[in-house]
Parts: sequence; structure tokens; C-alpha cells
Amino acid sequence: MAEPIYYGTAYYPELWGEKEIRQDIEEMKAVGINCVRIGEFAWHRMEPEAGHIDLTFFRNIIRLLKANDIDTILCTPTPTPPRWLTYQHPETAFVNSDLTAYEHGARQHACTNHPLFQMHAYQIIEAMAKELGNLPGVIAWQLDNEFKCHVKECCCETCKGLWHKWLRAKYTDIETLNQAWGTEIWSQSYSSFEEVPQPVATPFLHNPSLTTNYRRFSMEKINEFAHHQARIIRQYSSAPITHNTGLTFALDNESLFKPLDFVSFDAYPQYGQFLHFQMQFDRWRALKGGKRFWVMETSPSHAGHTHGTPPPHPQGYLRCEAVSAVASGAKGFNYWLWRQQRTGCEITHGSILYSWGEHGLGYDNVKEVGEILQKLNPILSSTEVEQPQVGILFSDFANQFFQSEPMNNISYTEQFRILYDTLVDMGICRDVISEGADLSRYRLIIIPFLPAVEESFLQKLYRFAEQGGIVIIGPMTGFRTCEHTVHTSHALGNLEALCGVHVSQFYRADHTDAVMDGFGVQCKPVHWAAPFETVNETEQLAAYHTTLHVPSSAAARRKAGLGWVYTLAAMPSMEGETGSQFLKRFMEDAAKQARITLRYETDHSTLSVPRLDKDGQRYLFLINIDGKSSKVSLDKDWEDVFNQENIREVQLDAYQYTVLKQK
Amino acid sequence: MAEPIYYGTAYYPELWGEKEIRQDIEEMKAVGINCVRIGEFAWHRMEPEAGHIDLTFFRNIIRLLKANDIDTILCTPTPTPPRWLTYQHPETAFVNSDLTAYEHGARQHACTNHPLFQMHAYQIIEAMAKELGNLPGVIAWQLDNEFKCHVKECCCETCKGLWHKWLRAKYTDIETLNQAWGTEIWSQSYSSFEEVPQPVATPFLHNPSLTTNYRRFSMEKINEFAHHQARIIRQYSSAPITHNTGLTFALDNESLFKPLDFVSFDAYPQYGQFLHFQMQFDRWRALKGGKRFWVMETSPSHAGHTHGTPPPHPQGYLRCEAVSAVASGAKGFNYWLWRQQRTGCEITHGSILYSWGEHGLGYDNVKEVGEILQKLNPILSSTEVEQPQVGILFSDFANQFFQSEPMNNISYTEQFRILYDTLVDMGICRDVISEGADLSRYRLIIIPFLPAVEESFLQKLYRFAEQGGIVIIGPMTGFRTCEHTVHTSHALGNLEALCGVHVSQFYRADHTDAVMDGFGVQCKPVHWAAPFETVNETEQLAAYHTTLHVPSSAAARRKAGLGWVYTLAAMPSMEGETGSQFLKRFMEDAAKQARITLRYETDHSTLSVPRLDKDGQRYLFLINIDGKSSKVSLDKDWEDVFNQENIREVQLDAYQYTVLKQK
Amino acid sequence: MAEPIYYGTAYYPELWGEKEIRQDIEEMKAVGINCVRIGEFAWHRMEPEAGHIDLTFFRNIIRLLKANDIDTILCTPTPTPPRWLTYQHPETAFVNSDLTAYEHGARQHACTNHPLFQMHAYQIIEAMAKELGNLPGVIAWQLDNEFKCHVKECCCETCKGLWHKWLRAKYTDIETLNQAWGTEIWSQSYSSFEEVPQPVATPFLHNPSLTTNYRRFSMEKINEFAHHQARIIRQYSSAPITHNTGLTFALDNESLFKPLDFVSFDAYPQYGQFLHFQMQFDRWRALKGGKRFWVMETSPSHAGHTHGTPPPHPQGYLRCEAVSAVASGAKGFNYWLWRQQRTGCEITHGSILYSWGEHGLGYDNVKEVGEILQKLNPILSSTEVEQPQVGILFSDFANQFFQSEPMNNISYTEQFRILYDTLVDMGICRDVISEGADLSRYRLIIIPFLPAVEESFLQKLYRFAEQGGIVIIGPMTGFRTCEHTVHTSHALGNLEALCGVHVSQFYRADHTDAVMDGFGVQCKPVHWAAPFETVNETEQLAAYHTTLHVPSSAAARRKAGLGWVYTLAAMPSMEGETGSQFLKRFMEDAAKQARITLRYETDHSTLSVPRLDKDGQRYLFLINIDGKSSKVSLDKDWEDVFNQENIREVQLDAYQYTVLKQK
Repeated sequence: MAEPIYYGTAYYPELWGEKEIRQDIEEMKAVGINCVRIGEFAWHRMEPEAGHIDLTFFRNIIRLLKANDIDTILCTPTPTPPRWLTYQHPETAFVNSDLTAYEHGARQHACTNHPLFQMHAYQIIEAMAKELGNLPGVIAWQLDNEFKCHVKECCCETCKGLWHKWLRAKYTDIETLNQAWGTEIWSQSYSSFEEVPQPVATPFLHNPSLTTNYRRFSMEKINEFAHHQARIIRQYSSAPITHNTGLTFALDNESLFKPLDFVSFDAYPQYGQFLHFQMQFDRWRALKGGKRFWVMETSPSHAGHTHGTPPPHPQGYLRCEAVSAVASGAKGFNYWLWRQQRTGCEITHGSILYSWGEHGLGYDNVKEVGEILQKLNPILSSTEVEQPQVGILFSDFANQFFQSEPMNNISYTEQFRILYDTLVDMGICRDVISEGADLSRYRLIIIPFLPAVEESFLQKLYRFAEQGGIVIIGPMTGFRTCEHTVHTSHALGNLEALCGVHVSQFYRADHTDAVMDGFGVQCKPVHWAAPFETVNETEQLAAYHTTLHVPSSAAARRKAGLGWVYTLAAMPSMEGETGSQFLKRFMEDAAKQARITLRYETDHSTLSVPRLDKDGQRYLFLINIDGKSSKVSLDKDWEDVFNQENIREVQLDAYQYTVLKQK
Repeated sequence: MAEPIYYGTAYYPELWGEKEIRQDIEEMKAVGINCVRIGEFAWHRMEPEAGHIDLTFFRNIIRLLKANDIDTILCTPTPTPPRWLTYQHPETAFVNSDLTAYEHGARQHACTNHPLFQMHAYQIIEAMAKELGNLPGVIAWQLDNEFKCHVKECCCETCKGLWHKWLRAKYTDIETLNQAWGTEIWSQSYSSFEEVPQPVATPFLHNPSLTTNYRRFSMEKINEFAHHQARIIRQYSSAPITHNTGLTFALDNESLFKPLDFVSFDAYPQYGQFLHFQMQFDRWRALKGGKRFWVMETSPSHAGHTHGTPPPHPQGYLRCEAVSAVASGAKGFNYWLWRQQRTGCEITHGSILYSWGEHGLGYDNVKEVGEILQKLNPILSSTEVEQPQVGILFSDFANQFFQSEPMNNISYTEQFRILYDTLVDMGICRDVISEGADLSRYRLIIIPFLPAVEESFLQKLYRFAEQGGIVIIGPMTGFRTCEHTVHTSHALGNLEALCGVHVSQFYRADHTDAVMDGFGVQCKPVHWAAPFETVNETEQLAAYHTTLHVPSSAAARRKAGLGWVYTLAAMPSMEGETGSQFLKRFMEDAAKQARITLRYETDHSTLSVPRLDKDGQRYLFLINIDGKSSKVSLDKDWEDVFNQENIREVQLDAYQYTVLKQK
Repeated sequence: MAEPIYYGTAYYPELWGEKEIRQDIEEMKAVGINCVRIGEFAWHRMEPEAGHIDLTFFRNIIRLLKANDIDTILCTPTPTPPRWLTYQHPETAFVNSDLTAYEHGARQHACTNHPLFQMHAYQIIEAMAKELGNLPGVIAWQLDNEFKCHVKECCCETCKGLWHKWLRAKYTDIETLNQAWGTEIWSQSYSSFEEVPQPVATPFLHNPSLTTNYRRFSMEKINEFAHHQARIIRQYSSAPITHNTGLTFALDNESLFKPLDFVSFDAYPQYGQFLHFQMQFDRWRALKGGKRFWVMETSPSHAGHTHGTPPPHPQGYLRCEAVSAVASGAKGFNYWLWRQQRTGCEITHGSILYSWGEHGLGYDNVKEVGEILQKLNPILSSTEVEQPQVGILFSDFANQFFQSEPMNNISYTEQFRILYDTLVDMGICRDVISEGADLSRYRLIIIPFLPAVEESFLQKLYRFAEQGGIVIIGPMTGFRTCEHTVHTSHALGNLEALCGVHVSQFYRADHTDAVMDGFGVQCKPVHWAAPFETVNETEQLAAYHTTLHVPSSAAARRKAGLGWVYTLAAMPSMEGETGSQFLKRFMEDAAKQARITLRYETDHSTLSVPRLDKDGQRYLFLINIDGKSSKVSLDKDWEDVFNQENIREVQLDAYQYTVLKQK
């Protein structure tokens, strides 16, 4: 528990001269920066000609930094292969779904599956690992940079061959594939794997079984690339390995991070979107079942590129972001970027120093955060985030399903956020979990907007409920198979038995007269609704009325072993107040049943994060997140850790925080 | 007149197992389904390898259905060539106007003009016709499926060659083409037909003569493909042949259906858009001059695909749709689809059974419609729609002209609908006719939004008027030649003489101070206006005022032989009330002149359709179409056919109907 | 000063027969047309087969026109190479940035850099110059037509080679380029010029140094093409040469017109946008430092093509346009077009005659203008526009910079217009100048929205101020280098010294709490703000407040030599009134300092243009521009030139004008 909090920044010394580098290091020390991340776009500097690798510059930089007490996270430079590679080998280009081959000049313009690209990539990584991987100060590796941030699935000829190989490995024979995808429809049937197309242009829509499988194939391939990088590094370097992922990139994060050492992520939420940030703390902290994660990139003031720049953070917002992050478990808090880019398309991006060396817009805030982290270090390094009792599933696969089948422009992320924000609003501490999570950590699990439920995950839910866990299923969960087809047994397949319901209709409920009636309110369902009949002992919690079909249920619960399974037939509309009330009361019922105790009901203005030290002493971080002010009444006595005063009520100014100790 | 009403559904037995097929047949019988349409996407099932045709499955299905008193409409499977064809012959791909060759995986991805594609298509059709075409229960053939529903004009190399051949056949020598299209403009002149490009990307806009001709070429080619299919079928099968067309596909329907036996169409109007459906009854019934047409596809509840789904029909709307259809002359009313697709991109489409075999959302409505058709069968089979006295032209060519020259995003279909809806509103029974219609059936013909008037059609209008017919010309009729150029004699060419007007200006009148003044109201013109001077005896009916030019006329009529020709200078704006009043009063004047007697003035809520039995006894179908209620006062005595009560006033609940017999 | 005003029209005799040509000439004379422009799209008519050039038709036309006292402007026909060229040599096609090669059928579909295209182009031009260039009546040449009106930068293989050559010429060695563009970023570094890509598709954005340089390269190349055309012509013909440019085409107009003889331009402003037109008079008049320019195209009523047509001019608006043009220095006022196109995509464009020979919508207005020009000729030909004291920079390079870096969709032209319109509103007579302008003509120079300031231009500003000139710098001026990178010395590089400011922050100020406070008003900054500290003697004129950083200045001035340099930190928001007031008062301060005397404060309804005769006698043109009415009070006595009445107050009806003589 004695790991220090790292306070860092992305750094591009290869773009600057000695004078600037000297100034940079002085200024870093002045604001409290103790680590930098380097190298992710520097392949050309490392290998200016094919095979001529020279890492002297970076070795010297790492040493110079270390001499100034600044540690280094070393990145593999694979997002930007050098021009000699793309020029001599145009066949390595990434090809998008309209069959455009991308030209050199941005990032991710090469197909990471191309053998020639991979050969060169692995060579430079091996050289880096060997020559730099054990230098003092190298505290971690980052693989590549934001996999898939600019691109989705590559459709090049190399990928076509790998796709066919992947399909053969998955289905063994083509008839199995034909049956699984139902290719008899529209004469899609294939007589060999070679005949299966990539999802390029057709006159109308592809079979979603094809598009969803192609997404899975691509997600697996990028992970293979990442894992091979990690294997090479581990041959020479013992520094832990991470990747800076993002919430919505087309990635299977759970698999990606399994053989890596810790999670890190990049996010650029604007003020007014603070919970977009907090949700990620709760997600990435939980991803590897542990508590170690980094904020690898966020802006000191604002993001931006030549084609658009959001407004800068208001005064103090950075403090709120940083304190929330470390309170929520971040072991590192890093900026992008240190010194404004002099050239390229990101010249408008906020930075700590300007290109001309003066203090950037966020400089004072950055310095203040440095001081705060210093001040909080003792308490942070002696405590850990208290394990939440509630887990809510954010599924990378669900996100991809809704790409293949967006229905009426349903945004998985936005829908998820409504449920997540409701939990925050209820003051309930939560993890945002993945399918592979260890459910025994939780009392209540929420599974919303998961179109396809893997059989193994379903069994896990059975076991969880049997052992006393509470599960919420829905809305919009389980209506597709994992091959992106429709069930033929029941609307929700085997899931209905777990729920103790019989779904009688499944249809788009927007613009109908349907009403969900329960918990003292009436609200309208949105998106696709699965009104159901309760089966056996299942208790109806809310009714579902419409002239379209017989009366049904909108919400129910059933005893399952020692636990309970709750089912929600449809997402309530957020227009007006009643939908939000319905949702909250439904979740409250489940939370009560689950005896959720770890919760701090405050208001929309305040975030609360409890932490425990190794003796079980509880500390509570309270942070104003709306830029107005917070006023929180506490139901027990707490002590202010900084002035030891007794506290029953807390007032916080805009973006201010406090830390309390339970008495 | 004894033909029964068919009540049917699209059916895909090739996608299901024996168990489901058995259940399907039982359920079909339970809801009154007496015919199914099969085969249109089943090419692969019929010919799993090139040349290996096996139709056993479908032979057995047809027999099994017949054994259960269910007849079959057999489709040629050409919209979805199998993968072996597209894989072995990528050169058969449809190529769109940005030169993208479409990949396998949806529908209509092959160029129907490609000789290799055609060879395979004609082989499978011949086999089907020979082996299945005379099986008991096969009551009709459907060619392909919704020609051009996903694609417009193919720009592949095969089409390029055919295009040049087509041009040579049309113009004989290149100088004639150059003159007709005025290619001296912008140095477009061609020295051979081979030099004429397809309408692919240019820096600005193509000559509309080229684009319009390419559209015509493409429309002719798809018809040739259809007609060759029909010829093959007729060698072996005597079942009548149709195609399921759509209102706005790029098709010349009149030519398409000439050698076919009856018209059928697909439409998926939502509630609130009922007249979009009714207009098609009036159109497709009239297309072959007869009264036989089918609704080949409409949804039992809602349409949908993976990327969007409209809301479901409200309770009872299906009844309104079905009763209106059969009252308006439909001999068949078919759903798409019977059992929800298990796979593919249409998994969200409404169906009568779900994939898992339970009753779909519209099941009860479908069953009710089955009972109603049974009940109405005696009266429907002993009567026919009474021939309307008014015909309004909907021109497939006009629709294509407005694609080549959309002006300010003028939607031909939407503009047409305003006029059509006005007729409905006036209670006037109407046919929606094509250029080839037998005008002698009508007293009043309306020709709106027809940019180019063929000389032969103009002569037909002359004869019609001479013999006592009333013609309304305009708005926006006749301002282009058939080659999509501007007239050089008068603004409207030879049409002006028919109208007895001299158009002095032709310009876009929106946002000007122009006013049309007549029939007691003043309204603003929209789109392009052709204000005119009256010539000789022509009577002005409305004036046209503006500061832009000298006072002109907005509406006029002239005696032409025994008839009258009415001219309308511009479309009235539908903002506010006066434009709609102006239009109605103008049309009323013509209707009076035409002594239109077949009309039933009701309200916006009610549709009225008169039918006659062979003795001239009149029956009146009244149907509530707005989902609220209808209250209709009748000017004569009628008898309710079901309870023989005398009726002078009818009240109908939402989507209810009644049938009256004139006393 | 005795040059007559030309009143002309674009004319396409090659599209019509003898009968129409005879009518055309009669009608031209009837409305006062005394010149036509011909030939720009007639390449095919001149050279129907490769090498078979026959100019007889045009020789005859020019002679026939001259015999009717109509002069001719002769165009080179290079925008529309004939089909034989594009068909035989598809490699000459223009290739856009998504690598689509354009097909024949519109304009500008060939790459003007292709050697084969150039060879043919220069041949036809040489033939024209030789055979037609000295015919009586040929008063001028127009090169091509609206260079780059439909296309931007060509990305064909020919251009790729030229691009590499251009780069080599500019940078000599590749390391210089790498350094200038900072290509170490994202491993963009090149080892040879051949490796530098064209700006075609990448997964994200290109380096703006690359895109901006490619724009410059393309602008230079089109100018080389133009200048070579001019050189050929001059070998045979002494008629002056122009090009009809447009405000926003991707052209370096200053270089383009340097070796040409006079400026002409095309513009189609609608009513309500009159100042869009006026701005161009002030720009193109000033471009060659002289007073000679032509309106080469504007519509007699409305523009238009098959895909859209704006509303027609209201009655009288054409008079306002024409009188403003000639008052502002136009020596020619020409329409597009004479006779409506019979064919092609511009059939909806307004014209003086319709295709069928009748008078077009604007005919009466055209005739009236002809009479007015006749009436004004004596006064116009004996006076010249009085040299304005204020110059405001419109930079073609700035326009291109904002294409490469649009930030938050900043439209350079729209932002410029706000400043321009403010000057008009203040009644200040102005030139719209280019970087190369002779500044000694002015007392006040305004340099807004110029991202990169060339060192030589900066020195010019220094000298101008030293000699007593007043300069306004900003908003948004100088924040990039000429290579489209960020400065490393100061935010605005060397410009800060000129301004006497130290810019401390540079960021997007929209949606922040920043306020600019000065001149008695408070307003909000928009776009990117550069709040600054004043240095040495610089006087703050307005403060800049925000919680984001320390208090700064929003506006300041400093004494520089005999003159003053004003600096504006940010563009004021035009929402509400205060931003506009702030801007006006700031500019008023500079105008006072500059002792601007040439100004006529009227109202938003009236345009005022002073002219001087060779004796210094001043005349004032007053024109109503808003279509309502004008009421102008004058501070001195004036005499109406037409009725010799004394005038202190002028009233003008809609679009009317008057001419006064100063007493």
C-alpha cells in the first residue's frame, strides 16, 4: 500500500532541442511532475532508416530525467510506422470499409496484421526492450497508443486471409458457419471459408452475424498484436506493462489487459460531463479486479486539433478531476501534453507550457494539483478504495453489437450512462464491471443493454444468485444470440428461466401507448420493450399496459436460491420526471434486497468516495463536481483529516474537496 | 366476378425445419391465410452449386401447402444470386455511380444486364417453370423482388457497352444525339457513341439530357430482363405473372407490366400516412386499365431492419388497411412476413409469428382481418370498384426527371400527394393513371408536375378534350422537352396551344412578392411559376400579381372541342389555408364542368369507396382512417348490408368500417 | 479618363443558329449592350478533332458583332477540353483528394498541369491569338473561366511529380523541409522529396504544413498555366488580358493578375447580400493598385442550375447593383447570360432572353440599366473613384490557412465581412487590399484574421507606421508561421514587437467567462483570443477579464515612429449589441488617430461613393441598397448633377440613386 501517486505528463523530447528540454525539466520539477511518458510516436527517431536502430537519444533522456527524479513510462512506437516503411511497402496500408487505402501522414495508417509491418514493429520493440527496458527510472511500458482510436476494422487483403483462417478455427467447417449465421437467407450460403466476404459495400445491409463476427475477429487480432509486443518486452524488461485504452474504441479490453500488468486510459471530458470521467475510474479500476489504474492522458485545460477545439476548463475543474481520480484509485494522473506541439494537427491542444516556453492556460491549476497530491499522498498511500457492493456491467461486446444493430440510433454508451448516473445519484458506491469479473465481490449486479448473454456468463449469474447475490437483468438484455441472431426457444432464450418470466412480445415501444406502472409512478418505455408474464413464484413489481397486447409486467423479481433476480422489461423514458423515478425506485428495491450499505446520499453536486486503511479505518473523500457548491449532511460523526474538527455537515466551494475520517 | 380474395403472406420455408413448417401451416389456417409467396431469395437452396439444380424441396412444400388448401405464388430468385456466382465471377457485380463494385451479402448486388448473370438467371427460371410451374396450387408467378429497391443505375463495363448500343439504336447517328442534347455546350460533343460517358463523378453537374437518358436506358434494361423471365416462364407454365413493384423505384411500370398479367405492389405506410397507401390502390388498380391488383407486401405490425424500425401499428389500423385495400380492388392482401427472420438484417421486422413460434404483435389483428375478408367475400366477389370519373397522372418519367433536375429539392411524390389528397378531401373517386391510360374512361384528367409531355400524349389530350373531356394542365407541366432540354418555340412548347395560353415568364416564385388571386382567395405560388397571358377565347379564372413583371394569369380555362382545358400557372403554397382553398376551388370548377357525380363528401376521417355489382347495384364502403372516429351524413337512403337497417348517417369508431347498399 | 463604360454579356453563339444570332444582336442593341464575351467553353467548336482547328465561325461572329457596334472579349476555352482529348487520354483527368478521377461532362475535369493537356491547350490558344487576336472589335482576352470554381487541389500522378519538384525548389534539401514542417512528429519524416505524400485520405488529419503547402503549390501551378496562356497571346495580340476570378476560389489573385492587364470577377449576390458585392468592388479595384476592373459576370435576375436556383432579384435591385459597380470603379458591367441555355445543367439560370427568344424576367431592368449607364457615362468617364484613406487586408493565403485549420468552423470570409461591413457602417471609404498593396496610399491599414504574417510584410507595416501610418493588428493575426506551425519565440512571433504587446495566453474564448471591457462597453470575445500585457509605452484601450488567468488587455495602441499600431486581442461576439459597439469604437479611435476624412456617415440603407474629376471636383454617388428607402443628411452643400438643385438632404426610394456635386 506504499506505492506513491505518480503525477506525470506525455512528453516528446524528440521534437525539441536541448534548451527546451532543460527548461522542461526545470518546469516539471516546479509543478511537481515526477514521471513522463515518452516514445509512442518516435519510431522514425529511433529507426530513421530500415534496420538502423539508434536509441541513444532516448537512453540519454531517460537518464537525464532520472537524474532529476523523474521516472519514465516507455511506449512502443507502433501507431506511427515511419515513412520508409509505408513508402517502400504501400501494401501495409490500412484499408477502410470503402476500400480506401490510407496514406502516410496521420496515425494508425498501417494494418497491424500485416506480416511485414509486424516484423518491423517487433524488431524495434525488441531493441527498445533490450537497450532501454532496464534503465533506472523506467517504471512501466505502454504498448502503442489508443489502439483503434482513429480506425475500425481493416479490410485489406492480409486481413481477408486472416479472417478466413479465423473463421475456420472458430467454425471448423463451413456448414457450421452457414447454420450459425443462417446464411440460407438471401442466398448468402458459402461453400468455403474463402467465400466469406469482408463487410465492405453492398446495396443494402450486411447480415449482422457477419459484421459482428468481423468486429470480434478484429478485436482479437489487435489483442494478439498487443500481447506479442508484451511477450517481447518481458524477455528483456521487468517493468510492468499497460496500454492507454479508451472507453469506446473497438476493443475487447478484458482480454487485452489480461496478460498486461495494469490498466490505464485516456479521457478528455469537458466540464459539465464530469461523470463521464468518474464512470471510467469505476470501470478501469475494476477491470483487472484490482485497484491499480492510471489516468494516462487528460488535458490540463482543453483538447483540440486543427479542426476543432472545445472550450477550456474553468478555474478549479482540474482539481476536481485530479482529486476524484486519485480518490477513486488512480495511481497515476498524467497530462497530455507537456509542451504545446509546434507542428502537426494537434497544435491547438491545451498544454502545460506553450511552444514558446511560457506557462499554458492550465499551468496554475497543474501546479496546484501537484501540491494537493503531495498533501494527499500519505492518506492515499495508506488507504485503498473501499470495495463497492454493486457492480454494473459495461460490455465491450454489447457496444459492438449495437454498432452492428444500432436500431434507432441507440447509443450503448449513452444508455449505459443513464443507469450509471442513477447509481451515483442514489449515492451508491459502484464498480463498472466486465463479463469476466469476480462476482463474489458484489451483493448486487446490474446487467443492462447486453444483447447477447454468453452461456457461461449466464451460468455465472445463476451461481451468483444461488449464493445470495441480487441480479438485475435488463433493460434490453438477452434478445440476441452470441452469433447475432434471434433465439428460437424464447424471446430471451435461456435467460427467461433465470428471470422467471415469459416474454410475450418484443418490439419498439417508442410512440406507442405503452405505460409502465409501478413504484407509485407511471412512465413510458423507450427503445425495444420485452413485456413479460411472470412465471411460478415470480412477483410482479410493475405492470405494463398498452392497447397493443394483453396486460403484462414491466418489472418483477424472483427468489433464486439465496438471492433474487430482478427483471426490467424496458428502459423508461427520461423525458419528464417519472421515468427517472421509476428507475430509481426499481433499483432501490433491489439495493434494499441486497442490503447495500456502502452509500453516501448527497446531492447532484457532490461525489463521495470511501477508502479504508489496512486496519479498516474509513476515510471519505467529498468533492464538488458541478462548479457551484456542495452542502452535505452526514448521518454519523466524522473528523476533518486536516484540522481534526468534528463534522456533521460539509460545505464545499466550486470544485473543492475535503477528506473526512470516520469516528 | 367470382374470383376469391386471397389472403396471404411471404414465406421462407427454406430457412426453417420441418417442425416449424408444420406449425406454420397450422397457424396459417388458424388465421385464414390461403396463399403464400415463396422462393424470391432462395436461389442458393435451389442451385447450391453452379448447374446443380434441385427443386425437390419447393415441390414438396407447394404440395404440402396445397394439401392444406394454401395456394402458392412462386418467385424467381434473381434478386439474390448465390455466392458461387459472385465469387467465381466478380465481374457480374453491380457498380454504383461512384464506381464502387458491390460485394455479396445483401440484395441486388449483381448487374442484371451482365450476360453471365443472365445466363444463370434464365437457367434457374427455366428449371423452376418446367418443374414447378404447373403444380396444383401454383396460382401465380412473381418476377424477382422489388426491382431497383436498393440500387439505381448500374455503371459497370457491361452497362457501358449496352448504353452505347442503346444510344445508337435511339439516335442512329451521333450528330443526332449531339443536337438533341445540345452537347456543343461545355465541349461535350461526341464523335462516336463510344465516347458518351456514363453519369459518373464530374467536378460539377452532368448534362440532364445525359442523366435522364441513362435513367431511361436503365429502366428499359430492367424491363427487358423482366420480360425475358416472363417469356421463359410462359413456355412451361400458364400461371399468371406479376412483379411486386414500389411507388418510387426507378422503374417504368407501365412498360414493365404490359406483358405481365396483373399488378402487385409492396408498401409499408405507417399510421398517420394512410393516404400513402390508398393512393397506391388507386394507382396500381388503374395501371393495367383493369381492376385486378394485389397488395403483395405490407406489414402485420411494423417494418424494420437492424438500422431502424418504425413504431408498430396501433390496434385496429391493420383492419383499416385491409378493408380499404379490398374495397379499392385488391384481389390479394399479403403480409411480409409470416415468421420473423432468425438471421440477417431484417430480424427486427414485424411478423405474424416470432422466430420462436409465438404470436407476433399483429397476430390478433391478422386473425381479425382473416375473418373480415371471409365475411366480405360475397360482396367483394360479386362487385367491382365503380369506375372513377377522374384520372390524375402519376408519371414514372416525371419522377425520373425530377431526379435529374431536382431544382430546389422538389419531391415529385410529395407534390403529387398534395393534389391527390385534395381530391380525396373533395370526396372525388379517382384513378391514378399513367401516360398510356385509356382516357375515354374519364371525364376529368389532371396532369400535374409533368416536366416533359410526349407529343403522342399531347395528341391524346387534344382528342380527349375534343370529345368532351376536361383536362387540367399544371402546375409545372410541359416546361422541358423529352430530351430534358428547354423548348425553343414557347416556354411550354406545343402545350401552350392546347391550353390557349402564352406563358410569358417561367421562374422560381418562392420568396418573391407574387400572388395568385382568384376564387375569392389570394395565395402565394411556390416552386417554378409559369404565369401566362390568355389567348383568344381563353377565360382567366385567377390573376397573377407581382412587381416582377406585367400582370398575368394564374389560372384559366378554354373551350376545346366539346371539352375544356384548364391551366394552373403554379403550385399554391400550402402554408396557411388559402393555397389549399385556391387549389380546391380551382379543381372544383373543373369538376363541375366535368359533371363529376361519383363523389362522397365526408370528412378527413373517412374514406369512401363505391362498388357496383353486375346489375348496377351500388355498394358503398366507408372506413375510418384517422384512428379517431367518423361521422358521415349521406344525401340519399342507404341500407346497412349486414343488418339491413336504413341509414342516413354513419358513425364509425377508430379504424372501423361499414358497407352500405344504395336503396 | 475617357474610357467608356462597357455594358456587356456572356454570349454563346456556337449554341444557336443564324436566326437566333440575328435576333440576339438586334435585342442587344435595343438594351444598350456594347460588348460580349465569347468562347470560354467552345473548344470543341474550334477544334472538333485533335489538330483540326477552324476558327471561321468565331471570326465571322466577331466581325458581325463589330459591324453592329458590339465589341468582343475573347476567352481561351481551356475549362472544357473536348471529348476527343479526355477520351483518348483519360490520364489527363483531374483527380480529387479521394482519388476519384473525374469523367467528362462538366467543367474543369482535366488536370491543367498535365503536359498533354497543356500541349493541346497552348495550341488552340496560339491559333486563336494568331487568327482572332487582332480582329477589330476584340477589346480584351479572358483566360479560361473561373479557375478552381469547381475543384480544389488535383491529386493526380502528374501533380505528384510536380509537387516533389516544387518542394525541392522551395526547400533544396529534405532536412530543411523536415525541420520546417516538424515532421519528426508522428514519424512523418521524409528521407527524400519523393516520399512526401499528397494530402489524400488518412485515418485522421494531415500535418497542416503539408496541406497548406499543397494549397500553395496548387495556387502557383494554376497561375503558371494562366501566365503561359498570356505569354502565348501576347505574341500575337495586343488586346489586354484578364481573368474572371471569384472571391473564394483557391487562387493567389495577386500573383495571378500581376502579369495580366486588368482584373475582372464574377459574383452572384442575392438581394439582402448587397455588401457581398460592394466588398468585391473595393477589393478588385484595389488589386492592381489601379481603378480598372470589370464585373465580368452577374445575373440579370437570378443564378441557378438543375439542382438549385435562388429567388430572382426584386424589381430595381439590378439598378442598385449596376450603379454601385460603376460608381465604385467598374469599367465594364457584364451579365451571365444573354440567352437562356437550351441544354446542360444551367438551364434554370436567369438570362436576358429566354431560349425561345422572349424577354427574360430581368429584361426591363437590363434595359433600364443600359439607359442609366448612357446617362452616367459623361460623369463616370470624367471622374475616378476617390482614393480611400483606409485599406483592409483580404488575404487569399489567410483564406487557405483557415481551410487547413478551420478551428471551430471559422469562415474567413464571413469574419472578414463583419469588419468590412463595420467600415461601411461607419461611412468610411475603403479599399480591400492584398499583401502586396502600396501602403503609402493609405492612412489606416487593418490586418484582421491573418494567421501568418510574412516577414517582408511585417517590415512593410513597420515602415508604414514609422512614416505616420496607423495599423490595426487583429483579431487573430500572426499566431502561425508561414509554414503553418506555431511560433517558438512568442505567441505571435515577431509581430508582438510591432504591437508593443506580450501575448500571455492564446486559447479558444467561446463559452468562457472572458469579457472585453473598454470604450464604455463590455462584450464577449469569440474564437481564439490573444489577451496580452502592454509593453513599455503601449496604452491599454480595453481590458480583458476572466477567471482563467491574470487580468490582461483586450485592445491597445502604441506610438510607432510617426504612426500608431493598434492591437485587438480577440473578435467581439456579434450576439447582442455590445460587441459591435466595441468594434466600432475601437476602429473609430484608430480612424480619428489616422485623421480619416473621406467618409460619409449615412445609415444602413445607403451606400456612398465619392469620385473626383481631374480638377479635384468631388462628386458623390448615393445609392439605396436595402430596397426600402434612404434619408441622408449632408454636412455641406451639394448640388444635384441632374437638376442643379442645392441639396442638404437626400431621399431615395428603393434601389434608387442620385449623384451630387460638391459646391
